[in-house]
Amino acid sequence: MIPLNEIEGGVTAAQGFTTGGLYCGIRKAKKDLGIIFSDRPAAVAGVFTLNKTQAAPILVCKTLLKRSSLCSAVVVNSGNANACTGERGLNDAWTMVRTTAEALNVPEDRVMVSSTGVIGQYMPIEKITAGIRQLAGQLSRNGNNDAAEAIMTTDTYPKQVAVKFTLGSAVVTVGGMAKGSGMIAPNMATMLAFITTDVAIDQPLLQKALVSANNRSFNRITVDGDMSTNDMALMLANGRAQNKPFSEDSEEYKLFSAALEYVMIKLAKMIARDGEGATKLIEVVVKGAPTETEAAKAAGAVANSNLVKTAIHGADANWGRILAAVGYSGIDFNPDDVEISFNDLPVLKRNYEIVLDEEKAKQALSQENVVVTVNLNHGEQSARFWTCDLTKEYIHINASYRS
Amino acid sequence: MIPLNEIEGGVTAAQGFTTGGLYCGIRKAKKDLGIIFSDRPAAVAGVFTLNKTQAAPILVCKTLLKRSSLCSAVVVNSGNANACTGERGLNDAWTMVRTTAEALNVPEDRVMVSSTGVIGQYMPIEKITAGIRQLAGQLSRNGNNDAAEAIMTTDTYPKQVAVKFTLGSAVVTVGGMAKGSGMIAPNMATMLAFITTDVAIDQPLLQKALVSANNRSFNRITVDGDMSTNDMALMLANGRAQNKPFSEDSEEYKLFSAALEYVMIKLAKMIARDGEGATKLIEVVVKGAPTETEAAKAAGAVANSNLVKTAIHGADANWGRILAAVGYSGIDFNPDDVEISFNDLPVLKRNYEIVLDEEKAKQALSQENVVVTVNLNHGEQSARFWTCDLTKEYIHINASYRS
Repeated sequence: MIPLNEIEGGVTAAQGFTTGGLYCGIRKAKKDLGIIFSDRPAAVAGVFTLNKTQAAPILVCKTLLKRSSLCSAVVVNSGNANACTGERGLNDAWTMVRTTAEALNVPEDRVMVSSTGVIGQYMPIEKITAGIRQLAGQLSRNGNNDAAEAIMTTDTYPKQVAVKFTLGSAVVTVGGMAKGSGMIAPNMATMLAFITTDVAIDQPLLQKALVSANNRSFNRITVDGDMSTNDMALMLANGRAQNKPFSEDSEEYKLFSAALEYVMIKLAKMIARDGEGATKLIEVVVKGAPTETEAAKAAGAVANSNLVKTAIHGADANWGRILAAVGYSGIDFNPDDVEISFNDLPVLKRNYEIVLDEEKAKQALSQENVVVTVNLNHGEQSARFWTCDLTKEYIHINASYRS
Repeated sequence: MIPLNEIEGGVTAAQGFTTGGLYCGIRKAKKDLGIIFSDRPAAVAGVFTLNKTQAAPILVCKTLLKRSSLCSAVVVNSGNANACTGERGLNDAWTMVRTTAEALNVPEDRVMVSSTGVIGQYMPIEKITAGIRQLAGQLSRNGNNDAAEAIMTTDTYPKQVAVKFTLGSAVVTVGGMAKGSGMIAPNMATMLAFITTDVAIDQPLLQKALVSANNRSFNRITVDGDMSTNDMALMLANGRAQNKPFSEDSEEYKLFSAALEYVMIKLAKMIARDGEGATKLIEVVVKGAPTETEAAKAAGAVANSNLVKTAIHGADANWGRILAAVGYSGIDFNPDDVEISFNDLPVLKRNYEIVLDEEKAKQALSQENVVVTVNLNHGEQSARFWTCDLTKEYIHINASYRS
């Protein structure tokens, strides 16, 4: 393990970043607008939804990333996703970029934009631009709680993580915030994440690190191709830590990547735990697979199964549903070889030997954190996936989301 | 359209079939065992789950189909799926076959077996064999209601359909019954269907007709690869109608296929409507697609979206979720061109022109039958998919299914 110190804070934990959040009037009565600012141009990296129906801010960010590898600010709103809003939506997203650039006195191609909320409604753009101008004057080192709150939709708590570690003679910080609370239904619930760091790193390497950590964190709470119209993770690295430059095959890159993965996995788990209506965090571990990809595929199928998630909600040790989900995941395995346990309590051994103790299993599944371990006994690789239980409250929230 | 007469009855509507159902003690207090019998050996066809984790009866039926193209009887139980039960489960399935063959005095390789219910528990095989012996003496032309009831699990009503039509100078009947009530969560809920007909048809052509009709019916309420460990549709054709033989390119084959498709689509819709906890039948029509396959892929993504299904449950015209689901379905299309309507009420026109009348849309979505039409304006092909709304009752049922 790498010596990481988890510290307080989020997107302003790293040097040179300020932020803030306020209520500008998009939503009913909650902070709905945030800005992250770096006092010097930062290398920027991003990963975006694979959905063919892409929200306006996604299209704008992709255009911006082609124009510039540097970024000074990110503006983000909740309450309206600015998705499926056509030409007008695109104009609104560009207006948000332009207004933020003017207010902060930075070039327009160095401002990224992000939105989450209801799909298919036009943005109240005047309220937003007024909010941007006001907020630009209020950014501070301790605005991170307000910003984390401003990006929440059905989230029940703000999500922030930060870590500190040494890189040669430099002290580097990586911090971030995220929102997302629909991951209980991995199709379509918006997930946003903003990571900041003061590490000095080349933009291409930053992008590489982000993609890699993303594959083991946010892509493990959702399913490729099943993403929302708005999903994005943006990362800014402003070099304030003044570490020596490093290359991909260096020890420094490994350290930095591990820190990034730590922050992103922690945020991902917070999102899963805060799934709409959730009462439990479920970690699905698939081991004994020929490759990590196959392990992740199997773990994803289990984590995405409504039937598994409702069974765990009811603390019902219905392990057959887990085996069935692995069965339709598309991976190659032999069902006879599979072993399953709940929180280290074995329930199924090879050759369908059922060692389930109903009483103990009920106890294990009644915990707030449930680890489902599936050993395929078919190789050496493993992968983890996170989800939450599926509850009546989920239905309640989503049957009238727009109301 | 083909002149089809829908008539009363199910698996005994066609000549030469008898059936029955009784309570043998697998479940708490509901009929749980059924037999279908043809008084002469019938050509048999079958389609089975693609799940890698296959229940014992699936494995046994596949073996039987390799041995013989004829079938005299099908034995089926509910309450226990005989899945994930290893060697012992296989033995139990073969015991069901053997006992039925003895009791009905037919060769062992002409009896198919089918099970549905809880996974991972051993069969109470003595109760079942005793039940088979008793039931074999009680089969009758009007036992179809008992049989349809005996295969139900969480189904709230039995599902039977039959049609009559003329084929040359012969009158042909196709009838069937089905069970399945978990299709609201297309992953894994067992679906069983048994179709009988008195048509005279070669076995390979019967298999072809079944596969084709299945692709437009039961495969449109679930997703390929997302099937249960036990899903199967079996079909018996005993030739009692004494029609002249026909080939694949004949008018007769077309007529027969249309009748079969009618019966199977009707059963499929009954299953979707009876989805666990459902209050509505949702038909998703995707048109304007380059191919039927792509249309079906898009329709399936919409029909499988938890968010779409909960929105429709709440009569919330959240059309953005529909467009997002098409977006992650993996098909090629241009979101700008998409048009969406609910029960013929347009809500979205090309270029994101939102013509949604909230009041009227709420009315449309409050019907018991909701048709969601998505026009991709990208070709001439279409496909339909059926599902139901996702409700709190679904959670209630599945959080303690085994209890």
